[in-house]
Amino acid sequence: MPQISERGTLMPASPIRKLAPLAYAAEDRGIKVYRLNIGQPDLPTPQAALDAIHNFDHRVLEYSPSQGFRSYREKLVGYYAKYNIHVTADDIIVTTGGSEAVLFAFLACLNPGDEIIVPEPAYANYMAFAISAGAIIRTISTTIEEGFCLPKVEKFEELINERTKAILICNPNNPTGYLYTRREMNQIRDLVKKYDLYLFSDEVYREFIYTGSPYISACHLEGIQNNVVLIDSVSKRYSECGIRIGALITKNEEVRKAVMKFCQARLSPPLIGQAAAEASLDAPEEYTRDTYDEYVERRKCLIDGLNRIPGVYSPIPMGAFYTVARLPVDDAEKFCAWCLSEFSYEGETVMMAPAAGFYTTPGLGRNEVRMAYVLKKEDLQRALFILSKALEAYPGRINV
Amino acid sequence: MPQISERGTLMPASPIRKLAPLAYAAEDRGIKVYRLNIGQPDLPTPQAALDAIHNFDHRVLEYSPSQGFRSYREKLVGYYAKYNIHVTADDIIVTTGGSEAVLFAFLACLNPGDEIIVPEPAYANYMAFAISAGAIIRTISTTIEEGFCLPKVEKFEELINERTKAILICNPNNPTGYLYTRREMNQIRDLVKKYDLYLFSDEVYREFIYTGSPYISACHLEGIQNNVVLIDSVSKRYSECGIRIGALITKNEEVRKAVMKFCQARLSPPLIGQAAAEASLDAPEEYTRDTYDEYVERRKCLIDGLNRIPGVYSPIPMGAFYTVARLPVDDAEKFCAWCLSEFSYEGETVMMAPAAGFYTTPGLGRNEVRMAYVLKKEDLQRALFILSKALEAYPGRINV
Repeated sequence: MPQISERGTLMPASPIRKLAPLAYAAEDRGIKVYRLNIGQPDLPTPQAALDAIHNFDHRVLEYSPSQGFRSYREKLVGYYAKYNIHVTADDIIVTTGGSEAVLFAFLACLNPGDEIIVPEPAYANYMAFAISAGAIIRTISTTIEEGFCLPKVEKFEELINERTKAILICNPNNPTGYLYTRREMNQIRDLVKKYDLYLFSDEVYREFIYTGSPYISACHLEGIQNNVVLIDSVSKRYSECGIRIGALITKNEEVRKAVMKFCQARLSPPLIGQAAAEASLDAPEEYTRDTYDEYVERRKCLIDGLNRIPGVYSPIPMGAFYTVARLPVDDAEKFCAWCLSEFSYEGETVMMAPAAGFYTTPGLGRNEVRMAYVLKKEDLQRALFILSKALEAYPGRINV
Repeated sequence: MPQISERGTLMPASPIRKLAPLAYAAEDRGIKVYRLNIGQPDLPTPQAALDAIHNFDHRVLEYSPSQGFRSYREKLVGYYAKYNIHVTADDIIVTTGGSEAVLFAFLACLNPGDEIIVPEPAYANYMAFAISAGAIIRTISTTIEEGFCLPKVEKFEELINERTKAILICNPNNPTGYLYTRREMNQIRDLVKKYDLYLFSDEVYREFIYTGSPYISACHLEGIQNNVVLIDSVSKRYSECGIRIGALITKNEEVRKAVMKFCQARLSPPLIGQAAAEASLDAPEEYTRDTYDEYVERRKCLIDGLNRIPGVYSPIPMGAFYTVARLPVDDAEKFCAWCLSEFSYEGETVMMAPAAGFYTTPGLGRNEVRMAYVLKKEDLQRALFILSKALEAYPGRINV
């Protein structure tokens, strides 16, 4: 029997999905599981998108252009302009989710062995895409104590060597909810310029910024427009994770040409998903406002509730719909598994993502979990109560 | 400005899509283009699939399981059983098109530098996925003179070395329409067994076999079930290229586990496409029969017509809906470009895929084109007539 590949062995199991079998088993035992582990919004998709699907009138479900429908890309130009991101339809490549945009950015820009600097904790699948592309992720640790702010420029420079080709940021951040300040973004810009690096900027949560602070896109930074590759997705902003529509946007024509060759090989992004994504741009302003207001309230509900539980601490996330919280436990992965396999309170339990999977530095995040506030408030409140009961009962509790 | 990657440079432009800008330009000049270049069937998608889309009732377009919906995978078990392919729902991983199945098979099974033996001419995107995965495609040439039959086992053994990890076949074949005989399949089985190789078998055209010859799936071969990775797609059999739903199927649990990690990283296959693909399995038998009958007639129309044009030769393809034909021209790529940019007859022209892009051996396929019979007969007849006129007028014509 032939062997699987080294990268097949190296690929990390998803920290978000690896506990799923335990959750299914709990549900099979009749236990209700509050799923705070995954960024799957429960809010409805815009009606315009659902209508576009119901009225989809092609008789042949044919390939679409490898770059994505021009009509959709042209409409996206106006969407980005509202965020002061000025691009043309030619600068936009429609991808199969933001996931494919990350993978193609790595494949087109990086050689095997090239290094990408990423602040950690970070979206765990960046690591998976780096392994797929043979690139190496070097992490700079941010800490819950400092609210996950960006480390000083010296910390980056310590890691920069001749194999360093890129910095990758997620802003607003998954998993921490951190929003980079103008000063931090300028620091990144200066580094990118000084060392002529790519800046891969995942900005899929731009709709979800809860402070008065401005959203500084990588595309707003001056003097590095040929270095910036923007990663985007409709998944979160329209509750459309399933349609797998994202985008890779860059002013760098050489990168676009290379990415397009990978796009042509996979033929085209999903057809009906594009129709839904295009229609979503017609969603009324109330859709965005209502969604936003809902997350504002949930954020308050979750963060206040967490910080009221003895021994638990969560910084206040400024964006996205996640927080990384510290729990009074010996090992958050053990605790999360225990919640699903051994604990229940009045027939209910909670599912969270152990944060260690978002760090590459061994030992970090061991007593942290990522929680997504993608449930309605009553459910969040109940989940918080169940969590407090679980922490009381957990044999590995540590008093802090 | 940072450099793009070496693989970004190495990636071949798609031989199917690279002439697209010339075709669009011709259409902008008011010329009608008969597109024989791409395997995009014009036949309608099953009504059951369109109904599933129109009646799709989710209010949230949420992620689906990384492996694909269980209900769909369970239904596929019955579909494969009709072809004497006996698998369980657990053996099936739903992918984003057959494309992703090929890429994930390479990523999970091969290390960078590992070699895959592929009979050429071959589907050009295999090369692109190999480059993406850092694997190396070594081709064994088949020739139009011998009807593209499989070379003798010695030809394979000449290429086998310690880096050889896999054989890849497409059966029935794209681009040649060749169908491997039982003897040829047994020869491949013996090689796979002797050298403990993976056998990646792309069988997306199994519905389209026009001779009385049996369809021998790689899954029918005895003694190598842990070596076989089946690549599949609904694109061709249901005219559903746009929904991007394929499958990777293997009895090898280690491979499945590794592939699943790549699947989890990209989260899920397209949601609505899966609903359409699942519903397609309910299409009445007449759908398959009518589609088949239509291709039988088109095949006859195209191949007879081609062989009636002076200097043109096409073997009779036994399956799929392509043929590779030899034209009396100096350079088929030049000729195909010329047809789109300089020629028209009564306001019409033809688009074909130059076959050189399906070979890796330099010089091979230079006077060959791949044509897909995905147009209705009247259009095929007209396209053949236009082609004959183009060959008469082409300055680079070679008399054979």
